[in-house]
Amino acid sequence: MSPPSPPPPPPTHRGVFEDFSTRRTALIRALTTDRDEFYGFCNSETEILCLYGHDDGSWEVKPPEPMVPTMLPEPMTGINLCRNDVSRVDWLSIVAIHSDAWLMSVSFFLGALLTSDERYTSVSTIKYK
Amino acid sequence: MSPPSPPPPPPTHRGVFEDFSTRRTALIRALTTDRDEFYGFCNSETEILCLYGHDDGSWEVKPPEPMVPTMLPEPMTGINLCRNDVSRVDWLSIVAIHSDAWLMSVSFFLGALLTSDERYTSVSTIKYK
Repeated sequence: MSPPSPPPPPPTHRGVFEDFSTRRTALIRALTTDRDEFYGFCNSETEILCLYGHDDGSWEVKPPEPMVPTMLPEPMTGINLCRNDVSRVDWLSIVAIHSDAWLMSVSFFLGALLTSDERYTSVSTIKYK
Repeated sequence: MSPPSPPPPPPTHRGVFEDFSTRRTALIRALTTDRDEFYGFCNSETEILCLYGHDDGSWEVKPPEPMVPTMLPEPMTGINLCRNDVSRVDWLSIVAIHSDAWLMSVSFFLGALLTSDERYTSVSTIKYK
C-alpha cells in the first residue's frame, strides 16, 4: 500500500492559502446558499457520510475514503447520523465547526514543508479571510 | 445518538493552548524517545490503528473511535498499514506531519467559540511553542 505523503504542490504559503480559500468557499456555500440541498443529501441513517470541500471549489457529501491511510486529513465522519437529533441550525453549526477544524488540518498538512515563519504567514493570511 | 458539540472547557485561548501543548508533548514523546515502543505497537497489518495524544499527557495507539460522529476530530487512521512500505524515519515523519495537522484541528475545534482575535492569539502562542 502506498504511504500517504505531502504532495509537492502547493509549496508556498500563498498556495496553501489559495487551497484553504477555495475549499472554504465551497463549504460555506454548502452550509448557506446550498443548505437545503446539503441537508437533503444527509438523509441516510445507516451510511456514514462526510462533507468535503474540494480544491476545485465544489462540495460533496459522500462516505469517507475507503482506503486508509488517506492522502489528506479526513473531515468529520457521520455528519448525517446526528442530523435529526438537533435543530437544523444547530446541526449546520456543528458541521461548520468541524469543517473549520478540517480546513486547518488540511492547510497544516499541505504546509508541512513550509518553515515556521511561512506557516505563520499562512495563518495570518487565513485570519483576514 | 448524541450529536458532537464543542465541550465547554477550555473556553479561553490559554486553555486551548494548554490542551495543544499537552497533546503535542505526548505525541513528540511517542515519535522520539518512545519511538521503538510506538513502532512496535503499529505492527498489525489488518487492524486500523491511530496515534492519539491525550490531554493528560499520555499517548496511545488504538483503533479509531467506533461511534461516529466523534466528539473531537480524529487523527489519521491506518498509520500501521503503511509502516513497512517506507523507511522508519520516513514513516515517523509521515505520522508526525499528520499528527501536527490533527493537533491544529483539535485546537480549532476546541476554540470554535473564541473570537477571531482570540483564535489568532492562540495560533500566535502555538507558533512560539
